[in-house]
Amino acid sequence: MSIPDALSELGTMLGDRLSRSKSDLDTHGRNEAHFPAMPPDAVAYPDTTEEVSQIVRTCATHGCPVVGWGAGTSLEGHALALRGGLTVDFSRMDRVLAVHHEDMDAVVQPGLTREALNRELRATGLFFPVDPGANASLGGMAATRASGTTAVRYGTMRDNVLGLEVVLADGRVIRTGTRARKSSAGYDLTALFVGAEGTLGLITELTLKLRGQPEAISAGVCAFDAIGPAVETVIATIQMGIPMARIEFVDAATAAAFNAYAGAEMPECPHLMVEFHGSPAGVAEQAETFGALVEEMGGKGFEWSTRAEERTALWTMRHNAYYACLAARPGALGLVTDMCVPISRLAEAVEETRADIARASIPGPILGHVGDGNFHAILLVEPGNAAELDEAKALAHRMVERALRLGGTVTGEHGVGMGKLGYMEAEHGAGWDVMGEVKRALDPAGLMNPGKMVRGN
Amino acid sequence: MSIPDALSELGTMLGDRLSRSKSDLDTHGRNEAHFPAMPPDAVAYPDTTEEVSQIVRTCATHGCPVVGWGAGTSLEGHALALRGGLTVDFSRMDRVLAVHHEDMDAVVQPGLTREALNRELRATGLFFPVDPGANASLGGMAATRASGTTAVRYGTMRDNVLGLEVVLADGRVIRTGTRARKSSAGYDLTALFVGAEGTLGLITELTLKLRGQPEAISAGVCAFDAIGPAVETVIATIQMGIPMARIEFVDAATAAAFNAYAGAEMPECPHLMVEFHGSPAGVAEQAETFGALVEEMGGKGFEWSTRAEERTALWTMRHNAYYACLAARPGALGLVTDMCVPISRLAEAVEETRADIARASIPGPILGHVGDGNFHAILLVEPGNAAELDEAKALAHRMVERALRLGGTVTGEHGVGMGKLGYMEAEHGAGWDVMGEVKRALDPAGLMNPGKMVRGN
Repeated sequence: MSIPDALSELGTMLGDRLSRSKSDLDTHGRNEAHFPAMPPDAVAYPDTTEEVSQIVRTCATHGCPVVGWGAGTSLEGHALALRGGLTVDFSRMDRVLAVHHEDMDAVVQPGLTREALNRELRATGLFFPVDPGANASLGGMAATRASGTTAVRYGTMRDNVLGLEVVLADGRVIRTGTRARKSSAGYDLTALFVGAEGTLGLITELTLKLRGQPEAISAGVCAFDAIGPAVETVIATIQMGIPMARIEFVDAATAAAFNAYAGAEMPECPHLMVEFHGSPAGVAEQAETFGALVEEMGGKGFEWSTRAEERTALWTMRHNAYYACLAARPGALGLVTDMCVPISRLAEAVEETRADIARASIPGPILGHVGDGNFHAILLVEPGNAAELDEAKALAHRMVERALRLGGTVTGEHGVGMGKLGYMEAEHGAGWDVMGEVKRALDPAGLMNPGKMVRGN
Repeated sequence: MSIPDALSELGTMLGDRLSRSKSDLDTHGRNEAHFPAMPPDAVAYPDTTEEVSQIVRTCATHGCPVVGWGAGTSLEGHALALRGGLTVDFSRMDRVLAVHHEDMDAVVQPGLTREALNRELRATGLFFPVDPGANASLGGMAATRASGTTAVRYGTMRDNVLGLEVVLADGRVIRTGTRARKSSAGYDLTALFVGAEGTLGLITELTLKLRGQPEAISAGVCAFDAIGPAVETVIATIQMGIPMARIEFVDAATAAAFNAYAGAEMPECPHLMVEFHGSPAGVAEQAETFGALVEEMGGKGFEWSTRAEERTALWTMRHNAYYACLAARPGALGLVTDMCVPISRLAEAVEETRADIARASIPGPILGHVGDGNFHAILLVEPGNAAELDEAKALAHRMVERALRLGGTVTGEHGVGMGKLGYMEAEHGAGWDVMGEVKRALDPAGLMNPGKMVRGN
């Protein structure tokens, strides 16, 4: 019973689809965050669910850890092979298996990326709305309960996965959910595996809700003197039932970064960037109502447009915010935080965070999905500068404490991974023990993404 | 270790809030469906979470089964005390603990009914949207993952519970979720307890999402020659992104029942009843667009109105559909089925069901939440007529088989309870075993609502 025994058996099964090349191990040991590299002992590239089941069964027999890998875009080191073992890379399982036009759903493999899915859907009039920015794999997005700019309208992965096929820790294959839009037939296993970060099983197929491509889209941007009135505008918009498709906040530092990186000409103050989806008359009415609110709250310069090129420029700039912020300090690494609070506490959460960063020696632009009470600071540290990294970690730690104090969560959308494990007890109390009990029931040997999610795993 | 020992200890703790009166036992042994009465040995009326915790702990010590009770409106015998023991009646825990206006959420106790909550919210401009028809308790609605006429717009209880407080089988009290709108911090325990039907713990507090009361509402009704074009109209409406707040189907037999019971003057053919929520201009546009679609699909007589009295008349009639159908066969009992399929298969599901009922000797009007692919037949049987009850059960059994064959679920919104337990394996396969593993992890002694939900419980 050992990792080498497992890999030897898997080599026979998979041939050159089991890789132990240094470059493969390096690639799968890296992460987009600041965590040290932790490569696995081998990488498997399965083609089918049956193969994944055989792989996991073999690993179970030999006590070999199993870590799932989608596109590697996680910001919390979810897929690091903390105890070595096998990384299962789903890049060969990347097909759209079915699109059900009338039912507005699609059945896909986990290695498919969200952009590839939307390319395939373009001619159907449908789209998959969850947009975390990165071109993540859909299996990874489900495993980490991803969301992003459109969650305020369309929800997170929790709301957009109808069903899953999962390979359990002992190799059993189960299906959760159905293609019916709702069900009350027992425990919600779909919701249990969405966000479980590969610690309960590997997702091998997803049934996703699709939406109709909006007939019309309007978008615009406006400026505020302070975060308070910007957030008040968002609260009023939500309470009026205006269905925003996106509502993004950027602070003065981010606006400055946009100006420098993308040649924007934004005043260096807080902004809201909004988008509305609907009928031509609907999106016009929504934009006008929003514009009136902005004016009432003292916001400035709101202009909206339904022209695709202006909208594309706006959201391209927003999607490149991470790179714009990085460019604000050439050569810097970004430590990205992810706090989410009840919206009534959002202004205070952002203000406190901004003041805290202002006292530090490193820059940290703030931006976020303000309609959900979710925002990020991109803390910019010099590579190899341990003092700065410590300072960034201390700021991030205080953001987490602030989120909990204000009734929020330690991670709105980036997940637990390596970075938030230490805060699970603070957020969940005895609920964290319950997570451990569920984990031990489904993975008694603790081989699925070990070292993550639960206590003593 | 026995039920009497538990009750003796609980009597000391609760005084006259532990009842063993025949009328109390009878009330809590009854159900709204056709299942035989199964009274508990006693009924507890706790006032606080701490008391619920002590009660459950005492029951655990003595091996006494524990069944939760909200308003007793379940249609699947969820709260029947199959193994005797203690029923915990939450009617004294019925307060609104907090309404957070800016965050649009409310914290409530489980015994509060949805109508009582909405009465308390009336002046706030907010409302709680989930509407299963019956004035159910919110704890019961969460425990059974209830939905109803508005789920097509606002979702089910799965989508509207932000967090819970739960007393576990060993008396521990946990909190799931936060008041933040989203989180990716670990397993989704909220979703695990919503729909668990009291088999994993007792819900003692809920944090619920609220919505803004719509500025304007339009509603209307229209007739079709057949179910096919009615369903095609619904599919087209959804694909166009028209945000229906309600879209209900009633068949010819239900229309006839409305005519007889409520003095409606509906042609005896399939109908759609719709409602739109939004701005005055928005609901007018939505109703007009829908009306044009109806005409295109060959539907007739669509007129819409924003007047409250007409709308109230329409939905009162719909909410009384069960009684209207019962009145169509005076003295009859109703056996209510609950199938839900992908909407592309809905027309065929309804047509097959209608034809099957037409071949039977008992009447069975059909109606449902067509936007979700969910519909009910109300099978009308003479009380005490065993042959008719058998016929109704056989029809219901074939509906379940039909739902599974068409890719749907055995219960869209009524839950598992007594009636659907026998179909869990057929729907979930090995996933049902996983439910059992979760159950045994959280309730190893099998005392929480025993005999329900999982195999061999």
